[in-house]
Amino acid sequence: MARNRSVSHVASARKSEFLAYIEIVRFELEAECPATGARAGRIHTAHGIIETPVFMPVGTQATVKGVMQRDLAAELDAHIILANTYHLFLRPGHELIRTLGGLHSFMSWPRAILTDSGGFQVFSLSHLRKISEDGVLFRSHLDGDAHLFTPESTVDVQFALASDIMMPLDECLDYPSSHEAANEAMLRTVRWARSAYQHFKRRIEETASASALFPIVQGSMFAGLRRDCAAQLLELDAPGYAIGGLSVGEPRSLSMEMTEITTPLLPRDRPRYVMGVGMPEELSEYVARGVDMMDCVLPSRNARNGCLFTSAGRVIIKQARYRDDPAPLDSNCNCITCRTHSRAYLRHLFQSGEMLFSTLATIHNLTHYLDIMRKMRQAILLGRFRAYLDNARNSAVEST
Amino acid sequence: MARNRSVSHVASARKSEFLAYIEIVRFELEAECPATGARAGRIHTAHGIIETPVFMPVGTQATVKGVMQRDLAAELDAHIILANTYHLFLRPGHELIRTLGGLHSFMSWPRAILTDSGGFQVFSLSHLRKISEDGVLFRSHLDGDAHLFTPESTVDVQFALASDIMMPLDECLDYPSSHEAANEAMLRTVRWARSAYQHFKRRIEETASASALFPIVQGSMFAGLRRDCAAQLLELDAPGYAIGGLSVGEPRSLSMEMTEITTPLLPRDRPRYVMGVGMPEELSEYVARGVDMMDCVLPSRNARNGCLFTSAGRVIIKQARYRDDPAPLDSNCNCITCRTHSRAYLRHLFQSGEMLFSTLATIHNLTHYLDIMRKMRQAILLGRFRAYLDNARNSAVEST
Repeated sequence: MARNRSVSHVASARKSEFLAYIEIVRFELEAECPATGARAGRIHTAHGIIETPVFMPVGTQATVKGVMQRDLAAELDAHIILANTYHLFLRPGHELIRTLGGLHSFMSWPRAILTDSGGFQVFSLSHLRKISEDGVLFRSHLDGDAHLFTPESTVDVQFALASDIMMPLDECLDYPSSHEAANEAMLRTVRWARSAYQHFKRRIEETASASALFPIVQGSMFAGLRRDCAAQLLELDAPGYAIGGLSVGEPRSLSMEMTEITTPLLPRDRPRYVMGVGMPEELSEYVARGVDMMDCVLPSRNARNGCLFTSAGRVIIKQARYRDDPAPLDSNCNCITCRTHSRAYLRHLFQSGEMLFSTLATIHNLTHYLDIMRKMRQAILLGRFRAYLDNARNSAVEST
Repeated sequence: MARNRSVSHVASARKSEFLAYIEIVRFELEAECPATGARAGRIHTAHGIIETPVFMPVGTQATVKGVMQRDLAAELDAHIILANTYHLFLRPGHELIRTLGGLHSFMSWPRAILTDSGGFQVFSLSHLRKISEDGVLFRSHLDGDAHLFTPESTVDVQFALASDIMMPLDECLDYPSSHEAANEAMLRTVRWARSAYQHFKRRIEETASASALFPIVQGSMFAGLRRDCAAQLLELDAPGYAIGGLSVGEPRSLSMEMTEITTPLLPRDRPRYVMGVGMPEELSEYVARGVDMMDCVLPSRNARNGCLFTSAGRVIIKQARYRDDPAPLDSNCNCITCRTHSRAYLRHLFQSGEMLFSTLATIHNLTHYLDIMRKMRQAILLGRFRAYLDNARNSAVEST
């Protein structure tokens, strides 16, 4: 399949073969670490190739806060970003985005986009939510208006956004949850995933979209439920799978355990995406457990709050010791912030409440994450990931 | 004089000739409009050449809010920016900036910087100010600490910042003011300018600074006082002069009148800087009256508030009519905002409170101002400024 097969070409090809869409978002496994579960690969999409393992910057409202799209591409070299269906559904509205040519066109981002289903935001942000077999009734956190998200409607919203990778509506639980509640939510998530997938296939047939839908494995912190969920979702034969319901307050050892028991159940030749993780020192742990894709607001949110990640550990920029520090934030970093500015200047911007701080800090923190991903990918391709991981673990121990 | 003569070279040359510093910031008059007072020129500084007429983006706290220094240079091609002595004195402190190599080094801005004296901010922002012949005693708007600004101390602060063009402490009055109060403030401004200039010359002798000090003509809205003030300041034989005390609430016709009676009194071979102006449609009026330099927070502040200047008039981006408008903000503008994004996307960012809006809007508004200045300069050089001005006036009438 050609690298940049056009959308219309793909669409006409699809008419003759129902399941061809699976190939639209296609994973090419390039290398596996012999000693861990780590893999390197390439995800082919209609908006370019995503080299994995990959970290996806979060662009909640069709913008990675404070960062121009030019810099996301030219400075960070992000291959894919994540946008939030819930937020874009409420504002500016998915129909408006459809009218303007989809999300890539709307926000002028030519590379790949993954959209979540909105399920997580419905459960964390909205008011008065009511779950039924049909879906979730909720009130907007913006104006209180009532809306219903169903497995089908969230697929439709994501078709309006025309994202490359879509997620089905799932039920997210807080931590801790009882086994009974977790089982019920997991079973509903599976039923919703089936409905969403059926609807997705119908829509793919009708439209020219070159998208994929990645079902989400739920099951809270119960290994048995995770296994049951994965087994049932495998029947959908999806081009990729996600692991959801982590980073909801559980200890990190549990997040790792749930990841570790789930990834081996997922198809080796499809990408695996753990949603909403993690800290910089956790990235290699997820990759070691066979994870190909991650996203998290942490690097960008922490950046805005003045917490910067560097190769020598965290920098809390408001600290007085940086007041007259002429050194770059991270002398091992080649981002425009570190190439251009001193810690003293960054501290001044932060203390003065200047928005340029958020921009420079976000570019740095995201570059730090993406650099870690690029180094891991290189290590996997060169057969050196085991050494990389050992080294990362030693550094993490030293800095604590 | 070589275009980029280094600071140390200049300093060693200066030791042998006391007044050589006047040449450090040197104005080269390139063309004059035969029908109006408009002029085109080049101001040579130790940090590059400033082509005039010029509009200086305001970088109050050592940052043009929301705009990276890279974009100020590469996208806007600003030759000079303005920074505020009052703000930088309070935070992070001028001694810190001196320690870090001066303001150019501190903020990583390799081109020219003009700093005001802080006088305007003392009168508009600070509390409990008390004016004496010595200077102004005031309390910081940040923490209430008491500080004294004297003609000498504000020069010293600006030497610590190492700006290319410095301003002496002056007394700014509100509008309206009585003739008596205006006369008293003008006379004090002249006395302070003399003290500042003497001190400045001493400091220039001692240091390696390649800076200039531009005295400020005051006199409120009284033509006679403006004339008296200008006549006395001319005795200083400064390398440039400023007109202050405008844009303080007076009708625009008065600002123009005061400018018109003052510029002919100032040396033809020195740049003239009107402080704190103006609206886009006023820029050509000031230039027609012989003004070479201007600055104003208007384009950047309005940008953040969603008021955008375009070749077809103002765009208030929150208006519903831009909701689904796929057109660029200004199809005649070549800034990165207009090259990349639609009005619909900009409106979405504004409505969502996303800081990327401020960045994109500020880049656009400042580009709009700088483009007007570049067009005027071209018109003057080509002997077509009279036609440019007539056309600008007709457009202004049409859009009101």
